[in-house]
Amino acid sequence: MTDCGYPREGIEAPKCTAGVRVLKLTIAYDGTRYHGWQAQAGTKHATIQNILQQALSKILHEPVNIVGSGRTDSGVHAQGQVAHVRMKNCMLPRILQRALDSLLPRDISVIRISRVGNNFHAQFSAQRKRYRYRLVGAARPSPFAQRYVHRVGRPLRVPAMRAAACHLIGTHDMAPFQVMGSPVKDTYRRITDVRVQQQEGEIWIDIEANGFLYKMVRRIVGTLIQVGVGKQTPRVIHEILSTGEAGLVGPTAPACGLSLLSVKY
Amino acid sequence: MTDCGYPREGIEAPKCTAGVRVLKLTIAYDGTRYHGWQAQAGTKHATIQNILQQALSKILHEPVNIVGSGRTDSGVHAQGQVAHVRMKNCMLPRILQRALDSLLPRDISVIRISRVGNNFHAQFSAQRKRYRYRLVGAARPSPFAQRYVHRVGRPLRVPAMRAAACHLIGTHDMAPFQVMGSPVKDTYRRITDVRVQQQEGEIWIDIEANGFLYKMVRRIVGTLIQVGVGKQTPRVIHEILSTGEAGLVGPTAPACGLSLLSVKY
Repeated sequence: MTDCGYPREGIEAPKCTAGVRVLKLTIAYDGTRYHGWQAQAGTKHATIQNILQQALSKILHEPVNIVGSGRTDSGVHAQGQVAHVRMKNCMLPRILQRALDSLLPRDISVIRISRVGNNFHAQFSAQRKRYRYRLVGAARPSPFAQRYVHRVGRPLRVPAMRAAACHLIGTHDMAPFQVMGSPVKDTYRRITDVRVQQQEGEIWIDIEANGFLYKMVRRIVGTLIQVGVGKQTPRVIHEILSTGEAGLVGPTAPACGLSLLSVKY
Repeated sequence: MTDCGYPREGIEAPKCTAGVRVLKLTIAYDGTRYHGWQAQAGTKHATIQNILQQALSKILHEPVNIVGSGRTDSGVHAQGQVAHVRMKNCMLPRILQRALDSLLPRDISVIRISRVGNNFHAQFSAQRKRYRYRLVGAARPSPFAQRYVHRVGRPLRVPAMRAAACHLIGTHDMAPFQVMGSPVKDTYRRITDVRVQQQEGEIWIDIEANGFLYKMVRRIVGTLIQVGVGKQTPRVIHEILSTGEAGLVGPTAPACGLSLLSVKY
């Protein structure tokens, strides 16, 4: 055993200095079999945060609290979730990453670990987040993408969806797009980029903003689907944002199509 | 109900002519939860052939025997398996495809159906087949590719694997690469293309031949892995082929990494 609790020989442990270090973790996961990111005390549901916390505590021999950039819902995936941990243990990031690699299940992967300043906070330091929603219209998704793509079951008019999506750019009160009864006070968000692309036989809707309300992406996508199937005109987004009329918002799109692509700091 | 047993209104059924028609189906599947292609009478194991046969019989109202280009093993995937059916029913291919779409599970997809001449036989008319094996060395595969990629767990020297793979091109007695005790008499196969590529953080080994023996691809890949980790030199393939020494063949690589890419006629 080295000072840093890592059992292999020949790996040089850095000299431990007093105090706490902060590490930034970039994490990818297939959310299919998890009850979302958020640790749930007192339940048996597996969550990403719980699994990471257990693995980290086991490796570092200290209780660890891993703080994510935000929650992802049950069944939602991530290609670039970001989290931080504060720890006393002075294990090198690459050693920690290797140890995590051997403990984590195959559907959760810590793809990068770096040391950051003590002021870094995965949630509060985040400047922008980018989500991608993958869907198909009437076509059948590839059997290899079935866990990551929502099938609408009807043909979609992509140009109309793209025209509707344009109205999202800018700073708006996004309250109509959050789930009713959410406790958030400030519901204004700045949407910096929206793209509706046709890729690999699918439609990808990318949305980047300085923050997201609860189920906001899935309710936006649900509304764009209504436009795509012709139940709404592309102006509906503008109407919702200018009148605050939540009744015009489409049904929340299923979790499986959604992935947190990246968080920018 | 139309003459062709399709219940929707407004879809014109072609005039049925006497005799049997042959349809060629191109099929993609995620083999993870199936016991291979081959129908197994008397067991409860789900196989791709069983599931397709049940769906086809239900739609066509006649017993159907679907004949594949060859078996794929338990856990092996396909992007372009080909099969044929002989049937009396005169349902249009696109109508049949739509009906199959609504009956098949999400991990099996019939991506194309076309009418072919009565002499067409999915197995015996096949000229060439192409398989892809996806693997990684020490790196962790993406959580989204975990079901389709084999992780060796040690760094791989790709140039050495590529040099070894070159020896496969040509017509050889591939008996050392088949599983012991296979009943096939003619074990000569002509390998027309072999590629070892680095793609998307993975290594893809593509092999095209006029036919494959039982577990041949996975035993070739197992041998190339031995070369990749430095346990064998790139000349090992040449030695196996020239001496017939099956003892030099590496362990059979796991099924999950293998996919039948295409069948050429």
